[in-house]
Amino acid sequence: MQRIAFQGVPGAYSDVAARRFFGPRCTTVPCESFEDVFTTVEKKRASFGVIPIENSLAGSIHQNYDLLLTHPLHIVGELHLRIEHVLMAHASASLETIRSVRSHPQALAQCSGFFRRHRRVKAVPYFDTAGAAQSIRESEVTDTAAIASAFAAKMYGLKVLKRNLENRPNNFTRFLVIGRSLCRSRAGTRMKCSIAFTPRTNQVGILFRVLGVFALRDIDLLKIESRPDPRSPFEYLFYLDLEGSPRDEKVSRALEHIQEMVTQYRLLGAYPRGKGNFYGAG
Amino acid sequence: MQRIAFQGVPGAYSDVAARRFFGPRCTTVPCESFEDVFTTVEKKRASFGVIPIENSLAGSIHQNYDLLLTHPLHIVGELHLRIEHVLMAHASASLETIRSVRSHPQALAQCSGFFRRHRRVKAVPYFDTAGAAQSIRESEVTDTAAIASAFAAKMYGLKVLKRNLENRPNNFTRFLVIGRSLCRSRAGTRMKCSIAFTPRTNQVGILFRVLGVFALRDIDLLKIESRPDPRSPFEYLFYLDLEGSPRDEKVSRALEHIQEMVTQYRLLGAYPRGKGNFYGAG
Repeated sequence: MQRIAFQGVPGAYSDVAARRFFGPRCTTVPCESFEDVFTTVEKKRASFGVIPIENSLAGSIHQNYDLLLTHPLHIVGELHLRIEHVLMAHASASLETIRSVRSHPQALAQCSGFFRRHRRVKAVPYFDTAGAAQSIRESEVTDTAAIASAFAAKMYGLKVLKRNLENRPNNFTRFLVIGRSLCRSRAGTRMKCSIAFTPRTNQVGILFRVLGVFALRDIDLLKIESRPDPRSPFEYLFYLDLEGSPRDEKVSRALEHIQEMVTQYRLLGAYPRGKGNFYGAG
Repeated sequence: MQRIAFQGVPGAYSDVAARRFFGPRCTTVPCESFEDVFTTVEKKRASFGVIPIENSLAGSIHQNYDLLLTHPLHIVGELHLRIEHVLMAHASASLETIRSVRSHPQALAQCSGFFRRHRRVKAVPYFDTAGAAQSIRESEVTDTAAIASAFAAKMYGLKVLKRNLENRPNNFTRFLVIGRSLCRSRAGTRMKCSIAFTPRTNQVGILFRVLGVFALRDIDLLKIESRPDPRSPFEYLFYLDLEGSPRDEKVSRALEHIQEMVTQYRLLGAYPRGKGNFYGAG
């Protein structure tokens, strides 16, 4: 049976993403930090890890890009998960008996409309959504609820009081699957590559020339992001996702070409494109 | 006296950024949400607002880009603030008496090394860093501390037990100053522009051609980021920061030129570049 590492408490959205990707029969391994997810996979205590990389409201998670750059692991897959917040409590509780709701501050903020409509209900910060759900089961109270995934409600035997508590429906997280070996592309699968690099100079137009490497070969770009390099002040680090696999000759030539123009370069992985995008979930 | 709106509790890092930018004699106006910051400035209950836009570890705050696109305000300045977490408690407390520490889960995670080194100290989640500091003053306990800004310690009359609690020193947040009118450029000031746009098609190479508009005019790019458009599935929204002001002829021509190639376009603002970058703070 495959063991899949994720950061958080059982029932966390990363746990949901791991089970969605690998099927309900995989064994998921909770880790304390994102760094622990990488180490768990590296030390072969898990076959793969699943980490969030960007959220449609909150942005990219730079910390996980940093870990991808410093650990010898590869991206082997991706998954888009819609974040649907569920209000859950003990079987004997109801919307009327609830006086406080525990969750991660970000989840509470994403459900601020609910708290405005229910003035008597107090929002209580918690470390994580699934941990809040777990705490309800352990304490057996009827005046306290949690906001977490529907899966967490099932896992901790809690009653769903209300679904889709979030203010905005466009809340998607893209997760990456990381493993020890590069993914092999199969015929008929639409692949994408993720690379990270630092252009050789701060010359005006260097990025234009870098993108020319792909544009002049008709290779489509799916994501681009620049960020000051945390390890090297005054330099920029770029993340690029592009369509295709290094097994395609034009992609492999483009990836060789780009290395002539950069100081740091890393192929983070080549993997099948997740179904849909942020808005047509997998 | 200038009134400056920010999101959070007095003493929050946004409050610190506002005072750093406008000087210690400005009056800062706490708001519940980022949206409230925009509304407060729009309704002239404050002259300006100060909002975080990206963090060196966590990434861009898309929500604030969305608000910039939907509200009729402009970016008129920027500031880079190093996030230095301070451990603070009552005057009679000491590192030895502390058993629990309150703060926002993200701040607690950024100080995880401290909790590993002090196993008897429990991390307790709180809505925000400054709110945690405020709660300590209100309850007058000696076994509980908070992690917040040095400014919050001063504001709530708490003793600083330890500075620089963060695991990683490279924790910077870039804040934007927003106002009702476009900023006027002064001679001798290095200006930058922020724009947001959606390319006209998903054609391969469209971004290359868009960047050509700037590269072929020797205009330097300072930031680029793409993101699925939350209001329009299957389209990408781009954020671009570039050097110069629309008062420079080549910049003004480039901004006209780019509008031929995009469906949505917004000049978010033109403003003096903040001193340094993420790593040479202002």
